[in-house]
Amino acid sequence: MKIVLLGSGNVATHLAQALKSKDEEIVQIYSQRLNHAQLLADFIQCESVNDLKAIKTDADLYIIAVKDDAIESIADQLRTVNGLVVHTSGTTDIQALSSKVKRAGVLYPLQTFSKTKAVSFEEIPLCIEATNASDLSVLQNLASKLSQKVHHLGGEKRKLLHLAAVFACNFTNHMYTLAHQLLQQNDLDFEIIRPLIKETADKVMVNLPEKVQTGPAVRADETTLNKHFSMLNNMPELQHIYQTLSDSIKLMLK
Amino acid sequence: MKIVLLGSGNVATHLAQALKSKDEEIVQIYSQRLNHAQLLADFIQCESVNDLKAIKTDADLYIIAVKDDAIESIADQLRTVNGLVVHTSGTTDIQALSSKVKRAGVLYPLQTFSKTKAVSFEEIPLCIEATNASDLSVLQNLASKLSQKVHHLGGEKRKLLHLAAVFACNFTNHMYTLAHQLLQQNDLDFEIIRPLIKETADKVMVNLPEKVQTGPAVRADETTLNKHFSMLNNMPELQHIYQTLSDSIKLMLK
Repeated sequence: MKIVLLGSGNVATHLAQALKSKDEEIVQIYSQRLNHAQLLADFIQCESVNDLKAIKTDADLYIIAVKDDAIESIADQLRTVNGLVVHTSGTTDIQALSSKVKRAGVLYPLQTFSKTKAVSFEEIPLCIEATNASDLSVLQNLASKLSQKVHHLGGEKRKLLHLAAVFACNFTNHMYTLAHQLLQQNDLDFEIIRPLIKETADKVMVNLPEKVQTGPAVRADETTLNKHFSMLNNMPELQHIYQTLSDSIKLMLK
Repeated sequence: MKIVLLGSGNVATHLAQALKSKDEEIVQIYSQRLNHAQLLADFIQCESVNDLKAIKTDADLYIIAVKDDAIESIADQLRTVNGLVVHTSGTTDIQALSSKVKRAGVLYPLQTFSKTKAVSFEEIPLCIEATNASDLSVLQNLASKLSQKVHHLGGEKRKLLHLAAVFACNFTNHMYTLAHQLLQQNDLDFEIIRPLIKETADKVMVNLPEKVQTGPAVRADETTLNKHFSMLNNMPELQHIYQTLSDSIKLMLK
């Protein structure tokens, strides 16, 4: 299967590496930023382009891994191709593609990627969707080469999953950031709290989170809650977050 | 060193196991709930009591691992002992002990414990404090047998660390719970999001969290933020949390 990859960001980079490791043939990489496309293409050993008009028209699969708001304009340029065109977005409707191209699909990897850290792609849940059964089976074949965890999900469930991921990943990481901010202001190193962060995540690998909630809010320990609240008197934003989340934890008790 | 352990909850249990594994001699376990004390004492092979008046007076170290609001009343009963008396609380002043007993200290393990999951105690940061140098060195010796990570911290820094831990652990776990709630309402299994949770924690083992923040808020992707906000229209509490935390992430950009 000849693949054209459109994009050179975190998702495109990790996807390119995973595809290469499974001997899939990426024939071309497109990016607006030619030096980014070039870097990735050098690694994959394929052609790089930064002109949408130079995209090969005879590929079997086009993977659009760009920012959400750039998906439609790229799809516009792929109206005439016969290959399957997929995007990798959690929040974008398949219609953004199917209204323009002949064959449309979605290949959404549920993971947080950073260029500096390798991930084991086989552990990443891949959510797939297509407008017809034969294209779904093309995606199923490819996705199951890359990962052991392939899910057929319609657009509504995919979007919901993306929203849940904002809580479980983006907001969680922000909690780490706020903890770091508090530590830093008191000359304490972030290192001291890393074992706690690791254990907190490890616990929910085998338990449901609501079963292993700890801390003053779930104990309804008002003395500690009040002490913490006072300690944040000079940081109204953190105080507001402390109150909001403690109240939300208490609601779970009801 | 003869140790009396007061308490039979999560901290007391994990501490008892760690002390036993290092061949430290626990001579007695006290708990208000005799059956709890008994269970732990059977494992350690020592005496159990549920009467404060029956506590041995000739031990070298008394470890009070009970709820914060029960610490003082237990310390009251230990006024006459010559051994070192420590508590394991993140938020309680050393004065709660030093105002009552002859020799006072703190041994605070920075971890989230659940009875159902074993933890490697050697990886747990232990924060110690004492009112004089010789007692600090007693605690230092014991703590460094149990863990590779021993920190001397005064009360103010220990309390701050405990507050940071609420963000990094308790609030983080609550984010997992809210994600689970969203998934459950849409017939999606929590399992699908576990690899993302693991990777989010793994990333900050080698990076600082503010350097690896991802998601719509840090990209200032208003389209996605608005979509998510609408998806939470029927869940005002989650909508408020979504807004509050997204605003807080955006503040970091300034």
